[in-house]
Amino acid sequence: MAPPLLIDTDTASDDAVALILAIRSGADVRAVTAVAGNVPLAQASRNARFTLELLGADVPVFEGAPRPLLREPHTAEWFHGQDGLGDQGYAPPRRAAASGHAVTAIIDTARANPGLTIVTLGPMTNLALALLQAPDLAASIGRMVVMGGAACTVGNVTPAAEYNIWCDPEAARVCFRSPIPIEMVGWELCRGAAALDAGDIERCRALGTDVARFAVDSNSAALAANRALFNEDGVGLPDPVAMAIALWPELATRKSRHAVDVECEGTLTRGMTVVDQLDVVRKMPGSRAGWAPGAAEREPNVTVCWELDAREFKRRLFRALGDVSS
Amino acid sequence: MAPPLLIDTDTASDDAVALILAIRSGADVRAVTAVAGNVPLAQASRNARFTLELLGADVPVFEGAPRPLLREPHTAEWFHGQDGLGDQGYAPPRRAAASGHAVTAIIDTARANPGLTIVTLGPMTNLALALLQAPDLAASIGRMVVMGGAACTVGNVTPAAEYNIWCDPEAARVCFRSPIPIEMVGWELCRGAAALDAGDIERCRALGTDVARFAVDSNSAALAANRALFNEDGVGLPDPVAMAIALWPELATRKSRHAVDVECEGTLTRGMTVVDQLDVVRKMPGSRAGWAPGAAEREPNVTVCWELDAREFKRRLFRALGDVSS
Amino acid sequence: MAPPLLIDTDTASDDAVALILAIRSGADVRAVTAVAGNVPLAQASRNARFTLELLGADVPVFEGAPRPLLREPHTAEWFHGQDGLGDQGYAPPRRAAASGHAVTAIIDTARANPGLTIVTLGPMTNLALALLQAPDLAASIGRMVVMGGAACTVGNVTPAAEYNIWCDPEAARVCFRSPIPIEMVGWELCRGAAALDAGDIERCRALGTDVARFAVDSNSAALAANRALFNEDGVGLPDPVAMAIALWPELATRKSRHAVDVECEGTLTRGMTVVDQLDVVRKMPGSRAGWAPGAAEREPNVTVCWELDAREFKRRLFRALGDVSS
Amino acid sequence: MAPPLLIDTDTASDDAVALILAIRSGADVRAVTAVAGNVPLAQASRNARFTLELLGADVPVFEGAPRPLLREPHTAEWFHGQDGLGDQGYAPPRRAAASGHAVTAIIDTARANPGLTIVTLGPMTNLALALLQAPDLAASIGRMVVMGGAACTVGNVTPAAEYNIWCDPEAARVCFRSPIPIEMVGWELCRGAAALDAGDIERCRALGTDVARFAVDSNSAALAANRALFNEDGVGLPDPVAMAIALWPELATRKSRHAVDVECEGTLTRGMTVVDQLDVVRKMPGSRAGWAPGAAEREPNVTVCWELDAREFKRRLFRALGDVSS
Repeated sequence: MAPPLLIDTDTASDDAVALILAIRSGADVRAVTAVAGNVPLAQASRNARFTLELLGADVPVFEGAPRPLLREPHTAEWFHGQDGLGDQGYAPPRRAAASGHAVTAIIDTARANPGLTIVTLGPMTNLALALLQAPDLAASIGRMVVMGGAACTVGNVTPAAEYNIWCDPEAARVCFRSPIPIEMVGWELCRGAAALDAGDIERCRALGTDVARFAVDSNSAALAANRALFNEDGVGLPDPVAMAIALWPELATRKSRHAVDVECEGTLTRGMTVVDQLDVVRKMPGSRAGWAPGAAEREPNVTVCWELDAREFKRRLFRALGDVSS
Repeated sequence: MAPPLLIDTDTASDDAVALILAIRSGADVRAVTAVAGNVPLAQASRNARFTLELLGADVPVFEGAPRPLLREPHTAEWFHGQDGLGDQGYAPPRRAAASGHAVTAIIDTARANPGLTIVTLGPMTNLALALLQAPDLAASIGRMVVMGGAACTVGNVTPAAEYNIWCDPEAARVCFRSPIPIEMVGWELCRGAAALDAGDIERCRALGTDVARFAVDSNSAALAANRALFNEDGVGLPDPVAMAIALWPELATRKSRHAVDVECEGTLTRGMTVVDQLDVVRKMPGSRAGWAPGAAEREPNVTVCWELDAREFKRRLFRALGDVSS
Repeated sequence: MAPPLLIDTDTASDDAVALILAIRSGADVRAVTAVAGNVPLAQASRNARFTLELLGADVPVFEGAPRPLLREPHTAEWFHGQDGLGDQGYAPPRRAAASGHAVTAIIDTARANPGLTIVTLGPMTNLALALLQAPDLAASIGRMVVMGGAACTVGNVTPAAEYNIWCDPEAARVCFRSPIPIEMVGWELCRGAAALDAGDIERCRALGTDVARFAVDSNSAALAANRALFNEDGVGLPDPVAMAIALWPELATRKSRHAVDVECEGTLTRGMTVVDQLDVVRKMPGSRAGWAPGAAEREPNVTVCWELDAREFKRRLFRALGDVSS
Repeated sequence: MAPPLLIDTDTASDDAVALILAIRSGADVRAVTAVAGNVPLAQASRNARFTLELLGADVPVFEGAPRPLLREPHTAEWFHGQDGLGDQGYAPPRRAAASGHAVTAIIDTARANPGLTIVTLGPMTNLALALLQAPDLAASIGRMVVMGGAACTVGNVTPAAEYNIWCDPEAARVCFRSPIPIEMVGWELCRGAAALDAGDIERCRALGTDVARFAVDSNSAALAANRALFNEDGVGLPDPVAMAIALWPELATRKSRHAVDVECEGTLTRGMTVVDQLDVVRKMPGSRAGWAPGAAEREPNVTVCWELDAREFKRRLFRALGDVSS
């Protein structure tokens, strides 16, 4: 029996698909907490509630931090659409946000559900605030699957960093330096074979279900942006990939534990997830100076996912969208 | 006819092999300039002169900067041996260093040889000082092949950075931001198939020539360190790889131009060569904030080498070491 | 009628005197919130409760953040004594800490008491967390008097910074960048004529009251440290000075509003309160680059206290300690 | 007999007055080296030559660095006028710049004149380059009087920094960390009683000499800027103050040695001269972390001038401008 789930999300297009994947795959989602990121907090909350209503899922949505701990907010409507869901004119959700702050909800849910799995699909502001207020929290969390970062590879929002971590690097650092058992799913896992190409999208649309239609439509702005900016016919879905690994750990076909930290001070490297893949910090004299001045060696603290079973990922995604043949 | 060459080097074991490769391949080496890095300046100068004498090459060796522009020096005797050449007890070279400073030699050689190719095998301190004193210098340099950095991959001395750039990141930044046409050969190009494995080393030793013996012996400490630290039976030769690309540009079988800059401010990422492989800075709104606050977009300024023809590299290396069959 | 007060404190020796000053001067103290700083959180909480019990004051003490937002904690037992109160062997307080987190207490107290005055005597971690969780909070706070920083002068814990701000510079920045009306009382206001000299301490001891004895005894370690390190016979009392200005604003005999921000990135200047006394940022072309890259001009956001009526400060302090002639 | 002098200057209005003061006071000026700062290099060189010609002084002017080591140049024509000399339409100087680079001139002059006094009136780029190329240089320099910085007080170009150091903080750091015996004359020494007020300027103009007229006219833009921006009727002359202290050390009526370093990493504090006036780094446990991570304690390395005999300064200045009664 899989442990209960809490999902923290700056709900825009691919977050919505991740929610579909979780709910339609039968995950026991106890709470959704909204955070500012791709879209402002109120829009993220609205999008999460809209998606859950579409799914008929009775999951409370708590609103959290309206901005990063220390940085100015940088939303991404240019990619996800003004409403974060492709500007399809979706009606407002009927349900209001749950009362209480997301930070309190995270603390309470974790304490009430030892072993809880948390999946973060946006900037890690809510999680950091929860940890800062309740450092004991780490002990209650069984796994934290993080859609975020780029492991020894190029970033998607700056040359060195992935959006979620770049947005609130200090929040990510608070989480990465805590004892929470983190599994990091970098954006690169949704590239290549894992990205939905034109054929996949066609197949999706052909399923004819409400959620399949919503999944495609809500990503239409992202598709258009990809085509315009990168001349690509398709779209990577980082959040569903992370969710899939949260639900079915075996989909991460190569993973290993490493010392990972977040760069918060660099000029060019803000929000980079620095992964000590070769263990040079412990092996090489002098490395420590550059890695973390004055600090002791770091023990491996994060499970880095390097490879995805893209075929199986897509199979389960299509099934969640209503493909009975998958 | 290949343009004349100036080689800037913190001469230790693989620098020595690069010098062999250049001289024995008939390159027109006009000057060697020594810089502190793997070993202190005096040792680097001595090693360069010893190697050139062994080769019977009448090339002047100029001594330059005894330390990075702003950072404390960090030598790597633990890897290259106390003398940087595997502690074989080599006799002192007969010739003294040339009179005059390396910075002056670089300026004079470039001005006297428009189109000059410069190959840097160590920290870029001398080159930066030359540029700072004579900004017009850039116009005289035809190519600058840099052994340094790591392009969108893990570093070798910290998780984010390669040794040469890490040592003196400010010097590298001065060079990378200048109009000099740079070709960057990251340390990753000497990994995998390009590394000399046990068989290669055996074959090398079997050549029986003085330079082959010297090439193997002077790298013995590096071999032992690789075995002890990384459990690897072999050794990568970053400097000879860069030299090979300088001599035979076609050995870089995949390369492309990108905006590249050096991180000088980060806590974890000092000396990282940040390569904008996906051109996100120009394509994505908001990226600029993270990439270079307040700065305009960057034009591609560096040719990044992504792939090496490892087989051909080794063939030419063996030939330089005396293998008449190569 | 003075507005109600909330006091946030890392209770050690001079914090205790500030509590005495507030309570004995009849301030309407609604809550005390404890934070890690001079001493660990549990000790700060214990010291606050002990002091309030000694005063017979029925004020709840809420426990908050056990460490700064992002930095390692650095306590100051070497100055205040192992227990923060001069190691006099004081008995544990009878009362327990109030239930609930300091952050919640701050939010609730502010919302329930619009116009609330908050006095911070330690690192600003609790306040920052409250603001991050409830950005609307600023509107409920009438004044926030901050014991912290150094205005255009030397620091007390590094050459550039005062302890409270240095401890948690990011927390201070969150508060200073919020719309809360801050009055900054730098450590320099407790120097010179405001410091208690040998005669003042003698006079204090001679009062013979419980609180006077406690005030002197609990500062005995600080006195000894001052004598040993700085060869000074006396002790500055930054927290009581700030409390006095909170209670009697006219004691700040010179104050003015300026743009103030906290340096969080410097190597030598961590936690410096940078005060734009001459308004150079708005007046001088080019200043902005250095002051806050990419940011717009700053409006004056903080009232900086430059001068204290030291004589009157001492008079009121002695009165609070039981001097009926004051 | 006073030691020979080398003057490094980004010659604009107050630099010119400093040159007058030196030459007319009979100083043995061996060389003037020009550097970019207030005005671009070529203009600084031209202004220095113009001033020396006006004085009939046969001193060579060498041109040096056209920009800071690592930072973008920021000139100050808005303060000194487009030509740096109040835009009076002065004719071009007859003499050309001396051949050879300023860095070489500094190295050669110092080696030829052990005990040389160097006075720096601009960004310290030339000096840093000389030191980086010839670290032994420090031993030949008897005194280096630096017009630069702000000692435990507000800056003049940002709230934390003085212009010369702010312009090229890395160059200043190279010099401050070298063994050169530095005397730091912060900009604050030219404020208050040392500034030329309306009466002083009137008196100056009344002297009727060529140099007095030039001194006033060349500062006319600065005067106007001071009036417009700061509503002040007068002008501080930082360079002449530093020159006066170089010529007559007794004019610095209070000075002391301290550990001083330059902030190069801060966001708000770039180029701040951090003076450990209270010796907290050595006295306080924990300070070191903030002051210089990983570094050992600093010995006092700089003589900081705190107070100027303003009356005597003005007397000697007027005398240099032709006042026979002074």
